[in-house]
Amino acid sequence: MADKNNFEVTPWDVEGNVDYRKLVEKFGTERLTDDLKERIYENADARNLYIDRDFVFSHRDMDKILKDYEEGNGFFLYTGVGPSGPMHIGHIISFKMTKWFQENFDVNVYIQFPDDEKFWTRDRSYDEVEEFAKDNLMDVAAVGFDPDKTFVFKNTEYIGNMYKAATKLAKRINNSVVSAVFGFDSSTNIGLNFYPALQLLPTFFEERRCLIPAGIDQDPYWRVQRDVAPKFNRHKAAQIHNKLVPALTGPEGKMSSSRPRDAIMLNDGPEDVRKKVMERAYSGGQVTKKEHREKGANLSVDVAYQWLKNLFLEDDKKLEEIGRKYSNGEMLTGEVKEILVDKINEFLEEHRKRRDEKGEELKEKMMYDGKLARRMWDRNIDLG
Amino acid sequence: MADKNNFEVTPWDVEGNVDYRKLVEKFGTERLTDDLKERIYENADARNLYIDRDFVFSHRDMDKILKDYEEGNGFFLYTGVGPSGPMHIGHIISFKMTKWFQENFDVNVYIQFPDDEKFWTRDRSYDEVEEFAKDNLMDVAAVGFDPDKTFVFKNTEYIGNMYKAATKLAKRINNSVVSAVFGFDSSTNIGLNFYPALQLLPTFFEERRCLIPAGIDQDPYWRVQRDVAPKFNRHKAAQIHNKLVPALTGPEGKMSSSRPRDAIMLNDGPEDVRKKVMERAYSGGQVTKKEHREKGANLSVDVAYQWLKNLFLEDDKKLEEIGRKYSNGEMLTGEVKEILVDKINEFLEEHRKRRDEKGEELKEKMMYDGKLARRMWDRNIDLG
Repeated sequence: MADKNNFEVTPWDVEGNVDYRKLVEKFGTERLTDDLKERIYENADARNLYIDRDFVFSHRDMDKILKDYEEGNGFFLYTGVGPSGPMHIGHIISFKMTKWFQENFDVNVYIQFPDDEKFWTRDRSYDEVEEFAKDNLMDVAAVGFDPDKTFVFKNTEYIGNMYKAATKLAKRINNSVVSAVFGFDSSTNIGLNFYPALQLLPTFFEERRCLIPAGIDQDPYWRVQRDVAPKFNRHKAAQIHNKLVPALTGPEGKMSSSRPRDAIMLNDGPEDVRKKVMERAYSGGQVTKKEHREKGANLSVDVAYQWLKNLFLEDDKKLEEIGRKYSNGEMLTGEVKEILVDKINEFLEEHRKRRDEKGEELKEKMMYDGKLARRMWDRNIDLG
Repeated sequence: MADKNNFEVTPWDVEGNVDYRKLVEKFGTERLTDDLKERIYENADARNLYIDRDFVFSHRDMDKILKDYEEGNGFFLYTGVGPSGPMHIGHIISFKMTKWFQENFDVNVYIQFPDDEKFWTRDRSYDEVEEFAKDNLMDVAAVGFDPDKTFVFKNTEYIGNMYKAATKLAKRINNSVVSAVFGFDSSTNIGLNFYPALQLLPTFFEERRCLIPAGIDQDPYWRVQRDVAPKFNRHKAAQIHNKLVPALTGPEGKMSSSRPRDAIMLNDGPEDVRKKVMERAYSGGQVTKKEHREKGANLSVDVAYQWLKNLFLEDDKKLEEIGRKYSNGEMLTGEVKEILVDKINEFLEEHRKRRDEKGEELKEKMMYDGKLARRMWDRNIDLG
């Protein structure tokens, strides 16, 4: 286990009480400055909660994305999700961020389902991976991407169109690089060891610059992309990073499907949500009511408050009020949690409604029948 | 460079004065006994020069192949060639052996063109690999395989049908295995490192047992297959091994397209062949004519004699006569070489005639339109 002062953020494991300021330094990314935020909003002609609240806080080359956009060259988005279980709130928030960019910049989105990687990483059959993928695809569909400008693909299905280009990438990435970046070693199977080539490839699906909205923990992958891209005379992928959505139990590490009790899953019913938030969400409040009225809550570690702030509560005034009253002891943890429970349930209800009503149809379009999907199935990816 | 007593036989490099008896011990393969040869001939209802002359000399599980065949379960053949240059005599002889089995046992043949591997192993573009592949495919077509029972495929083309099954194989092969067996290390690119999964896969194209006719130097590959096969409840691949066709310059190492001056290439004209054999073929004869008449030739290192014996001269009596007269000094090197030149040119002329007349048509059938090819394009390889 990682020591609190010695946090580890790798694509496969995020632990420790992550200090995002240090992380930006360690990874060498850039803070999303107020100027840049304004420029994003101007071009989007819209504001964004996650950016407003500094949940999306870091980037690489976001300025170049905006320049390309301003000059009429456009860009495209790439994201993905490994089908390894039912999806939780953390997953969907990355997709919502991606959708926000698509909606407000009118650009294409490519979504990879690395079923091969999920098969390789654990003792799991393709039947299991398939089950997860089926379910996850419906959730992704419910996010509301433009079905004619979004292409969703499973690697094992789309490989025929990608393989030759992937072999070109693979030729430029050697074992020592994937060992250093992903921690692969002699016990790693030769499939997983090859996988980075497939993960990087979609950043080259268009000649334009690629923007990847993702957790800061995914940064190492893209550093390999940024090393390799110039060798093909192609753009380094830009990224815009969100913080990790903490587990309910506190700011130690990231929400994970493998700990569903401490995560809000997209299929949690209203009572599940209430129970989890009430019982599991780490509180910054004091132990006794009396003590709490005196000292108030520590907002920075309070999961309910942080979730409201980063993810759910659009109303600035209300957030300010909650923050003030909670930190001075006027509000109790239970009251703040009630607000969060309502917000989450509202969010999930809408999500499930879209999933049930539109999921199947949108999924088919994004995978096979939509405009972009049809174009993608008709072409072989080319890397020159 | 390898010391003569310390020969190295790896898939990428064969050097040294190979001692085949030691090799059988070192690799743990079995000698092809006279009993087994007879059993092959009985089932084939035909004899074979390479087996007769002990050029094909070693095997794994050939007895099981025959048992399967005798019991009506059949088997299938798998071979391949990496498109890395024009083909030489050594290449075509493996194919001729394969064809002999197909012809006399009436079984399917699968031929892999690992264009991906050849792209990965050297500083070579796909355009170059493509050029070689085009040319090599015509030579393979000229061998005369049954075009309805032979499937020839390039990996980058057929990958869509193979990938998912290959990922299952890959999951069972880790980096330390490919490092030990193929000598891959930290500088190896992640593509080549993955390639063994694709090379092994065709051994599972049918549920029946697979027979691989190949140079003894290819054995390491198949040991990985034999380790992995039981995990899928599938047959270990059987093999029948030929000796390496030596370069003209002598029994030190194997003929290679990268040293065309010391190889007989399939596109060498009659005068090229004459010139190469006369000037380059290593002689076991003595330096002066006088000395030669006295001491005679050392047949075991004489390339012309060895080629006649192992590859070209069907007539046992004539071979015996040449051997006797050459080793006692009655015949001179030049005379033996003349016989070889004629044999090679006869062989090449026939080959080129078939290539020119039938190559294009047979190639298309074996790759796309023949019965087996059509069946293969319609299926996804399944590994359970």
